[in-house]
Amino acid sequence: MLGKNIFYAQSGGVTAVINVTACGVLESARKQQAVGAVGRVFAGRNGILGALREELIDTSRYSDAAIARLRATPGSAFGSCRYKLKTAATAAGDYRRICDVFQAHDIGIFLYNGGGDSLDTALRLQQYAGQHSFPLQVIGLPKTIDNDLMATDNCPGFGSVAKYVALSVREAAFDVMSMCATSTKVFIMEVMGRHAGWIAAAAGLAAEPGDALPLVILFPEVPFQADRFCAEVKAAVGRYGYCVVVVSEGIKNPEGKFLSEMGAADAFGHAQLGGVAPVIASLINATLAFKCHWAVADYLQRSARHVASGTDVEQAYAIGKAGVDFAVAGKNGLLPILVRRPGSTYGWHIGEAPLMVAANAERLLPAEYISTDGFGITAAARAYLAPLIQGEAVPEYRAGLPHYVRLEHELVPPKCSPYPG
Amino acid sequence: MLGKNIFYAQSGGVTAVINVTACGVLESARKQQAVGAVGRVFAGRNGILGALREELIDTSRYSDAAIARLRATPGSAFGSCRYKLKTAATAAGDYRRICDVFQAHDIGIFLYNGGGDSLDTALRLQQYAGQHSFPLQVIGLPKTIDNDLMATDNCPGFGSVAKYVALSVREAAFDVMSMCATSTKVFIMEVMGRHAGWIAAAAGLAAEPGDALPLVILFPEVPFQADRFCAEVKAAVGRYGYCVVVVSEGIKNPEGKFLSEMGAADAFGHAQLGGVAPVIASLINATLAFKCHWAVADYLQRSARHVASGTDVEQAYAIGKAGVDFAVAGKNGLLPILVRRPGSTYGWHIGEAPLMVAANAERLLPAEYISTDGFGITAAARAYLAPLIQGEAVPEYRAGLPHYVRLEHELVPPKCSPYPG
Repeated sequence: MLGKNIFYAQSGGVTAVINVTACGVLESARKQQAVGAVGRVFAGRNGILGALREELIDTSRYSDAAIARLRATPGSAFGSCRYKLKTAATAAGDYRRICDVFQAHDIGIFLYNGGGDSLDTALRLQQYAGQHSFPLQVIGLPKTIDNDLMATDNCPGFGSVAKYVALSVREAAFDVMSMCATSTKVFIMEVMGRHAGWIAAAAGLAAEPGDALPLVILFPEVPFQADRFCAEVKAAVGRYGYCVVVVSEGIKNPEGKFLSEMGAADAFGHAQLGGVAPVIASLINATLAFKCHWAVADYLQRSARHVASGTDVEQAYAIGKAGVDFAVAGKNGLLPILVRRPGSTYGWHIGEAPLMVAANAERLLPAEYISTDGFGITAAARAYLAPLIQGEAVPEYRAGLPHYVRLEHELVPPKCSPYPG
Repeated sequence: MLGKNIFYAQSGGVTAVINVTACGVLESARKQQAVGAVGRVFAGRNGILGALREELIDTSRYSDAAIARLRATPGSAFGSCRYKLKTAATAAGDYRRICDVFQAHDIGIFLYNGGGDSLDTALRLQQYAGQHSFPLQVIGLPKTIDNDLMATDNCPGFGSVAKYVALSVREAAFDVMSMCATSTKVFIMEVMGRHAGWIAAAAGLAAEPGDALPLVILFPEVPFQADRFCAEVKAAVGRYGYCVVVVSEGIKNPEGKFLSEMGAADAFGHAQLGGVAPVIASLINATLAFKCHWAVADYLQRSARHVASGTDVEQAYAIGKAGVDFAVAGKNGLLPILVRRPGSTYGWHIGEAPLMVAANAERLLPAEYISTDGFGITAAARAYLAPLIQGEAVPEYRAGLPHYVRLEHELVPPKCSPYPG
């Protein structure tokens, strides 16, 4: 007799390596299928929406070669979503619907690959299934560039964005350093991180050992004070001739207002959408009269598979494989996590934690990772971050560009009534 | 008897490969030194300012290994400048000063590595030297990400930024495609190009063969019409679910005003500095109510040595070598150029052109490279652009990041009076 069918779905903002986890799931599941331990694997089209809408992608259609290529493809192969299930008390129909769809397709294993909100959705579904005696194993597969999940030492997706940020800051520093005698003196780079400063912190790895790199980091954990910041930039330019500022999109002024929302309407009469880097550039220019350049990396930072961290790729794969292993072992309500080996040499293994722990908490940058002046990272932060960007996992290039795969989606025929939502 | 001493300097906005040209100059000059064909090589600290201020970097201090590493280092190893010599009629003192400094250090060869403005400076100096019977060979070494020099088929530096842009658009498209069902539908990326749309055009290489990639390019050569643009984006989103917009920093409205200057003052009361991507995002959001994300690559695009084009690296090196070869051959008032072999298989060799041709003209994107709707590139453009991004020239990685070299600068003792300027 075959094992249970699996429903795997990707959720939330994508990362450079979420498809690596998909690859880990699918390759491991194929091995388990061969020995009868699991049944078919369906992928949800656009995350949990694929379950609600009964849009189940038949992954058996893909060749082994196509699945292997997911290891080197950014984005989300099956489509992602921003959709958080409401509580079962207010949206019982959604939970019932998902169970109906799962039952119709003999799905007994749900692997949900996402961040805090997605793990919360997984947890709620697991609780609902338990309360209604619906036979379902729910396993979360952690993923977020924000690195803000509890329980796990780090999150798949973070190492790659950290590498991208450190590398970009290093390269841009060479540029502004070259120009500062007669032109731009301050380069500002905005990075993601609405609440937690992990991504901004990664910029602290940009300097080559022994080289000075005048860097001012603005963390969302530290209230922004314009006067202190300008003094810091002025001092750096005075000493080195230039300065690089890395600013988290989520920085707030002491009154708690996002600086990115302080841009006014533009000439079309539209409110400016996001972008804290130009606000910082304007401030420096007006206060210190330094010529500034600014960049906003936005999606480039989280889709940069071409410079993914080798460590991150290995870990993302291991998380996917562990999800299948957990399922075969009969586990439920858990997520595989990354556990760092104690000691000075980096090592890691897969552990486990309850969904409950990871679902509803946010791990900010600890105070001991931020330097006392609030503008840099400490040696402890460096020790934590450095191993996560190690190793290259270069994709194949064709005609000068990385070759990424797009899977055609073939949906299995629906068995339920159409989703009313 | 030794040959003449060389003064080499880097000028204008830097590129991912201007140091590759420096490497070509220095390695070739060392070979020519060994046979007595040239003398010492001085590098100007911050371009032509190094001559005016008599800040001559002694390149003999660098090991062969350090010079070889320039091949894999972005930025400008000797410092660049934005400084254009005025006419000899208005600033005769500057010209006399440069000749005095050159004479004091037995410099008879000036290699100036820059774009149109820098080649103009080189030309003026050559003309001044000729009129005053000062023995000086002036050779320009073309360099600009903008690809806007006349005479040469393409400019060293462009192929790498083109590769960066095509690669970034491909990666970001995978991201927005993954999210568009429930989140962002339009991703906007701003690229450099104040007057010419060559860099924006490179985005047209982003699609994998056979894959649709709904892309709308906004060129500085095409006046921006908000209504036509919005209709195009709406159609793309209607058909594909998402759209990628690549916008040149230099786009203007039909009245000739830069859109990047249409942002109003922010909450600090400062005029917003640059950034046309947020203007476009606000427009789409207000007109079409699509969720947008936007990125501004800024310096990241021209310092991205980690994804430099192999073709560009080879050509940048060949240009540097040719500069020394030209000098040894007694040439003057010329620049080495890249000549494309006719036919369907890409091939190139080094040719030559007068400084006069390249110095004071700007090569815009030809009309036949822009699609009739004004939002894309033609097959002719693709045939021109595609070879320039071929090949990888991956730098060495250490501890997870590219290893780039910073040269310590040792100035030769001054022999002239201090520069009064």
